[in-house]
Amino acid sequence: MEKPMESEAFTFSLRASILQWKQQGKRAVWIKLHIQLVNLVEPSVMEGFRYHHAEPDYLMLVNWISDSTDTIPENASHRVGIGAFIVNEKREVLVVQENNGKFKGKGVWKFPTGVVNEGEDICIAAIREVKEETGIDTEFVEILAFRQSHKSYFTKSDLFFVCMLRPLNFDIQKQDTEIKAAQWMPFNEYAAQPFVQKHDAFSSVAHVCLTKLETEYVGFSPIPRTTASGKTTHLYLNSRDLNKL
Amino acid sequence: MEKPMESEAFTFSLRASILQWKQQGKRAVWIKLHIQLVNLVEPSVMEGFRYHHAEPDYLMLVNWISDSTDTIPENASHRVGIGAFIVNEKREVLVVQENNGKFKGKGVWKFPTGVVNEGEDICIAAIREVKEETGIDTEFVEILAFRQSHKSYFTKSDLFFVCMLRPLNFDIQKQDTEIKAAQWMPFNEYAAQPFVQKHDAFSSVAHVCLTKLETEYVGFSPIPRTTASGKTTHLYLNSRDLNKL
Repeated sequence: MEKPMESEAFTFSLRASILQWKQQGKRAVWIKLHIQLVNLVEPSVMEGFRYHHAEPDYLMLVNWISDSTDTIPENASHRVGIGAFIVNEKREVLVVQENNGKFKGKGVWKFPTGVVNEGEDICIAAIREVKEETGIDTEFVEILAFRQSHKSYFTKSDLFFVCMLRPLNFDIQKQDTEIKAAQWMPFNEYAAQPFVQKHDAFSSVAHVCLTKLETEYVGFSPIPRTTASGKTTHLYLNSRDLNKL
Repeated sequence: MEKPMESEAFTFSLRASILQWKQQGKRAVWIKLHIQLVNLVEPSVMEGFRYHHAEPDYLMLVNWISDSTDTIPENASHRVGIGAFIVNEKREVLVVQENNGKFKGKGVWKFPTGVVNEGEDICIAAIREVKEETGIDTEFVEILAFRQSHKSYFTKSDLFFVCMLRPLNFDIQKQDTEIKAAQWMPFNEYAAQPFVQKHDAFSSVAHVCLTKLETEYVGFSPIPRTTASGKTTHLYLNSRDLNKL
């Protein structure tokens, strides 16, 4: 709904409609209320609606009006992040220090990281974040590993993809608001940092990256595909092993 | 907030608090309103709050009260699903027909699929869904591939993990509400279905599964780890290639 409405008129109209929809055998009623229609939130809840999800400018409510089992799917449950592993020809890795977050002021050098935007491909997000934070242009190589963790943000979970990218230029132009410092650092120096050594989530990732540098480690690479419903999509898989067939 | 409050008293108190918080240099104010306090949603919005996210029983609002750049992180953006590839010793694959969804009534045989619950590990969700839908107990082997697609559910994105599981029993006890039929089917028969052949997202996955059956294809396997903040987490990686080091 987008047009303003008095809450009493809204309640009256909603009750009549729900009676009709029940008779028609409809199972669920959704109401999407723009934030300008905030006056209609309370009357919706009074009529049996519950919250489903919200974005900054709207609230979605739902009401299961059937006697059958409620099958309303849950809201999005995960945030998706990327970390970028980028090495130059001197075996130096691109690292940053952040202005905010838990490592602020601790002198810890980390891979550039960021959040995948709504509607954005992981392989595009990684390139974008590296460019934004460090000015380095890259091409996507592979996902080397990924991590799932829980309760990282309110009640939500987190999927964090460690992406290898190939640098196309080497002259760092760091972004000032988020990034305190950025540099190319010898890989061994990065991996030897106490915080990397101490936490097995970090040391394992460093181990994977080192394996990638020194042996034939293969991760998942993106292949564009079309789904049955006609959407474009990326399928990530072990393309070296796939070609063995 | 959990206790009932008159909206006028709430507005008065909120205004005074925000003035104080601004003086203290606070940057953002969050209000979590249980659905029973729906009467306070409108006054919050009138005082400059916007929606951040909602769950069935509460609404979270936020107000950036500082003059600095708004750095409030976005809401969760992805739903996470699994598809289970399970083969018995006769090279038959476990497949189902669903009661609902876009393939309803079309006679299409699919891998068992499902949504990863909030706070649930992918490798646990796959085992749970297969058990729920078919009664088959399994152990988790690997993630063979995964797919990211967009606008799959309202504005949200979807991450779908193709998981290989090893069956521990073979006697199917199907669930009746979601599943119309379940059976063990020769893999070649599954892969030859017109809908699998026609859609490259499905035919590519079938190709990956066949490669796994016939060659040395390696996906990502889960390794339990602890993050820097002490959370337990699963890191998924190519463990065969990692052990080469």
